Amino acid sequence: MELNGRSRVIIEAAAPEVDDGAFPAKRVAGERVLAEADIFADGHDLIAAVVLHRHDSESEWQEVRMRPLVNDRWQAEFAVEKLGFHRFTIEAWIDHFLTWHRDMKKRVDGGASEDELRVQLMIGLEHIRNAAARAGARDRRKLAVFAATLDGDDPIDDKIEDLWSDDLLALMWRNAERRFVTRYDRELLIEVDRPRAAYSTWYELFPRSAAAEEGRHGTFKDVEAQLPRVARMGFDILYMPPIHPIGMKFRKGKNNKVQAEPDDVGSPWAIGGEEGGHKAIHPQLGTIDDFERLVKKAKAAGLEIAMDIAFQASPDHPYVKEHPDWFLMRPDGTIQYAENPPKKYQDIYPFHFESESWTAMWDELRDVFAYWAGKGVRVFRVDNPHTKPLPFWEWCIRDLKCEYPDLIFLAEAFTRPKIMYRLAKEGFTQSYTYFAWRHTKEEFTEYFEEITKPPVSDFFRPNAWPNTPDILTEYLQFGGRPAFVQRFILAATLAASYGIYGPAYERFVHQARDHGGEEYLDSEKYEVKHWPPADDDMTELIAVVNRIRRENPALQQNATLQFHETDNEQILCYSKSAGDNVIVVVVNLDVHLTHSGWIDLDLEALGLETGRSFQVHDLLSNARHTWHGPRNYVQMNPQVIPAHIFRIRRRVRTEKDFEYFL
Amino acid sequence: MELNGRSRVIIEAAAPEVDDGAFPAKRVAGERVLAEADIFADGHDLIAAVVLHRHDSESEWQEVRMRPLVNDRWQAEFAVEKLGFHRFTIEAWIDHFLTWHRDMKKRVDGGASEDELRVQLMIGLEHIRNAAARAGARDRRKLAVFAATLDGDDPIDDKIEDLWSDDLLALMWRNAERRFVTRYDRELLIEVDRPRAAYSTWYELFPRSAAAEEGRHGTFKDVEAQLPRVARMGFDILYMPPIHPIGMKFRKGKNNKVQAEPDDVGSPWAIGGEEGGHKAIHPQLGTIDDFERLVKKAKAAGLEIAMDIAFQASPDHPYVKEHPDWFLMRPDGTIQYAENPPKKYQDIYPFHFESESWTAMWDELRDVFAYWAGKGVRVFRVDNPHTKPLPFWEWCIRDLKCEYPDLIFLAEAFTRPKIMYRLAKEGFTQSYTYFAWRHTKEEFTEYFEEITKPPVSDFFRPNAWPNTPDILTEYLQFGGRPAFVQRFILAATLAASYGIYGPAYERFVHQARDHGGEEYLDSEKYEVKHWPPADDDMTELIAVVNRIRRENPALQQNATLQFHETDNEQILCYSKSAGDNVIVVVVNLDVHLTHSGWIDLDLEALGLETGRSFQVHDLLSNARHTWHGPRNYVQMNPQVIPAHIFRIRRRVRTEKDFEYFL
Repeated sequence: MELNGRSRVIIEAAAPEVDDGAFPAKRVAGERVLAEADIFADGHDLIAAVVLHRHDSESEWQEVRMRPLVNDRWQAEFAVEKLGFHRFTIEAWIDHFLTWHRDMKKRVDGGASEDELRVQLMIGLEHIRNAAARAGARDRRKLAVFAATLDGDDPIDDKIEDLWSDDLLALMWRNAERRFVTRYDRELLIEVDRPRAAYSTWYELFPRSAAAEEGRHGTFKDVEAQLPRVARMGFDILYMPPIHPIGMKFRKGKNNKVQAEPDDVGSPWAIGGEEGGHKAIHPQLGTIDDFERLVKKAKAAGLEIAMDIAFQASPDHPYVKEHPDWFLMRPDGTIQYAENPPKKYQDIYPFHFESESWTAMWDELRDVFAYWAGKGVRVFRVDNPHTKPLPFWEWCIRDLKCEYPDLIFLAEAFTRPKIMYRLAKEGFTQSYTYFAWRHTKEEFTEYFEEITKPPVSDFFRPNAWPNTPDILTEYLQFGGRPAFVQRFILAATLAASYGIYGPAYERFVHQARDHGGEEYLDSEKYEVKHWPPADDDMTELIAVVNRIRRENPALQQNATLQFHETDNEQILCYSKSAGDNVIVVVVNLDVHLTHSGWIDLDLEALGLETGRSFQVHDLLSNARHTWHGPRNYVQMNPQVIPAHIFRIRRRVRTEKDFEYFL
Repeated sequence: MELNGRSRVIIEAAAPEVDDGAFPAKRVAGERVLAEADIFADGHDLIAAVVLHRHDSESEWQEVRMRPLVNDRWQAEFAVEKLGFHRFTIEAWIDHFLTWHRDMKKRVDGGASEDELRVQLMIGLEHIRNAAARAGARDRRKLAVFAATLDGDDPIDDKIEDLWSDDLLALMWRNAERRFVTRYDRELLIEVDRPRAAYSTWYELFPRSAAAEEGRHGTFKDVEAQLPRVARMGFDILYMPPIHPIGMKFRKGKNNKVQAEPDDVGSPWAIGGEEGGHKAIHPQLGTIDDFERLVKKAKAAGLEIAMDIAFQASPDHPYVKEHPDWFLMRPDGTIQYAENPPKKYQDIYPFHFESESWTAMWDELRDVFAYWAGKGVRVFRVDNPHTKPLPFWEWCIRDLKCEYPDLIFLAEAFTRPKIMYRLAKEGFTQSYTYFAWRHTKEEFTEYFEEITKPPVSDFFRPNAWPNTPDILTEYLQFGGRPAFVQRFILAATLAASYGIYGPAYERFVHQARDHGGEEYLDSEKYEVKHWPPADDDMTELIAVVNRIRRENPALQQNATLQFHETDNEQILCYSKSAGDNVIVVVVNLDVHLTHSGWIDLDLEALGLETGRSFQVHDLLSNARHTWHGPRNYVQMNPQVIPAHIFRIRRRVRTEKDFEYFL
């Protein structure tokens, strides 16, 4: 019989555990991991349990004792500090000494006979002697003292008195008899990212539109000139669409016209020309040196450059000639272009991932990331990852993170939920969300409850974008400025990571190309735009909100997000807290009308005492109110500002707080 | 690279799957298994998927094609017929022909050019020719006909017309190109039991109390005489407490007195005397031949005998002398008796499962079951399985079921939920429940929702008992006859399997030994009782309700249990359905007062048309009512009968159903 039938403890349902341990759970450096499991055994014996954990680069396990919560659930806590993969498992065993100790107490309290107690003391003595035999010299000496008392001529009451010593319990724990230990049947991975993986503020701009003068193609140097402005608004990641040479063949014209005019600049996502492909830079943007300088300057301004990696090739991409086997050939000898019948995207060739040469192609695609990582880039926004095989991403990201554990990958997959989740499991650090298409109180509550709580939050980190160059929602098209302000505040306070596609957003650009569509009119995707300094935009508000995010740790995580009841369907109320820092956000979801109503705060969840007043400080208007109890009245005019971002001061002083009162 | 990166399909979260496949899901012979999984891939290609399944005794997989439901969930159905273990897994792949076929339709509908269509037809032709090459002679001939048309001089419209043929789709499916197939990473087990595992009606009696005359110790022959009575009440399992010799040392007296009188018979759970142990029969009950005859006679009466297996030994048990190493020795040389300090159970020695000789002990304990199975017993009620190691049960039950796949094990574990669930996962066929201690509408709803729906219902089969020899709830002690009637109807209609501890229940025995306790006064556990024929008991009602259960398949399963709203907290309403058979039960939970109120039926769930009247037939009172719409009025007097068991007739005839109306 292979089984050790004497290992009586069962360990089940450990957490965090993504898909039975098939994928790592995500945490950031400095976070404390709460490891849990159901642990139980037959009968009434007491159990001892430990979490074993270590960084993958270490060989020694660290051990933390677990404590029982309720209903056979056990927990321990450990910190993860080092980037990369941390792993843990659980061990548990019957602790016969503890069991004996508990029963001894019951016997004494139950008035057991002295005869019985003497037999029991013999049993206890044996436990202590065995522990001493296992112990190091120092503990052995201390245990010997306990043994001597139990074994000696002292009155039985004195012997028993000794048993209740915390010292004895600590000594016995340190030298516990670990017999018939059950070990959880797998080791679970924690992927430890840097803090920015969980809390980040993204700003997207097209470098070719960055020139100060109208009509000139922007350069990396022009982007450098924008850095102070972007930093002043409080962003920490500056994301640029692809910066590679753009194909000429089937190049798209303005507003996605099938035929480009001679001077049309094309879509940056039609990657590759005679100047090179995914490792080259569009000559009009600058040189590789210019790019590296931009990366450094950005860093100096507190910004990271995020690159856009789109795995597809224009017909002019060098890959097409060098690796025709990476593309699908049609029976007429032409290469299969991208299609979604009856729509055709002849300016783009997708990679053929069922190619015989797939391993070489995988290597090359991974090397694209590695190349730019070598130039100092640590953040990648990946275009349409859901149209490339999911197993590729697991391999690619895992491989890259071995060398660069500080990499951040944002998955731009606006697709079905299970695919979005799978991409996150495969290794994407952050994910775009359905945020742009959530509008009602019910929709926000349901969606954010799902994506900010386990099991989803263990592997999926939402990044909320109210717009992108592809997504100008009808809400923004028709909601006027209040819509822009409201969606911005929602994104920035609901999600620890959010981003905006910049100049178009901060200037309230809202004209769509087609009725019923979400494409911008005269989209930057197909032409160079000019964004001269504006008097009237959202930059001030953006700077204020991003400062609020920086100053309030509550807004830098999602785990504590909680929705509160309101009596008006147009008023959304939610809170986030981090220790003493408590933020309550109230938003008027109606972009046209002033709304007022009563919010009903879950005071306990906010750490507020029921009978005590508390102060709410609106960080947007700087107004301060004293509230009492859960029900409070709010009113918001969308034409002024459609939201409150309240910081809660839990204790408001009363006369009782002053010395002279006492 | 070991990974086949060209297998692009992902298969996740298959069902039924208990603890990631660590344990089998339970079904009964003749049931149809709904196998499901999340199946998806990158991009927009169409997927094909099959379930592979086989009984463990077969070597060939059967295949069933899966169909997509919603949200990337796929499903297929297969029947399990043969007892034992059935296993299944899933395979899926990109179906390039289907993808091409779908896109061809879109191209044609989108008005693609004839040039484009010709290229596409070439691609389709290749798919068909490849399929023909894979096919057997018959399919090959048929595919050749399609290929000839596509390849020939027919007008392009005719060629295209051919593509929409169902025959072509069926041929292509049968000979599909299964390249880069993804197989689910595990095989999942289905434990197939006989139908009684899921639907059973238990009656418990003490054979020693079965004598017709007062003062005589009952025998198996006396039990034979009871068979017609028990069968008439509609039970199908007759369960007897342990029938083994009872120890003399520390024998308990009446009402669990520490010192027995000389003529006290002791507790049947203090197993083992000089006449033998777990494989012997108490001499006063009869011989092994008597027992075997009882088993046969019971079978002839439609009843199975269930034995009680309690793994513990009296100090007189032969094991104590023969295998002292199976018990724990104390330092004073005595054997450790059962204890729950400060309580002592000196008449019982627990087995020491951490013994060095554990493998020999496991073998012997399993052999106890095997011995009785050899005598024709197929149902075992296992006493306190949660005080024996959980891994033992998995091994023991699995091993026994290889030889006797028709065995049924009922776990008598009134312990913490996770342990009860684990026992069920380890192999127990049925489990006692907390039913006896659930009283309010909220409690019933919450508890039965939990135990009758996946994931729990995949491994845990509830058996509801309103009483047992150990459990006389305060509800029964103080609720009078209405309490007995109400709890009986609830058990029999909420759970497909239920049981009563017989004579005491049907005669409304309600006197407890101690205030605040649940022990019967003058319990049969410690003395011989006499149950002369009674004029006034519940046997008629029991017979009626058990007949209703037999005649209504809806009550023979739990999967469709659904609770319906009522406007009175004392009125519980729930339904079960099996095809056309729909039962709605309404219970007045108040044992003192008549209650009336409105029930609000979920008509859609019941398969009722909203606008059409339906008939409800109370199977208890035989009254019939015509109801219309979801809200209906009910009133129940607990002194008369506290419940309705309605059978729904979905269609009530109206004038439109008669020919002369037309």
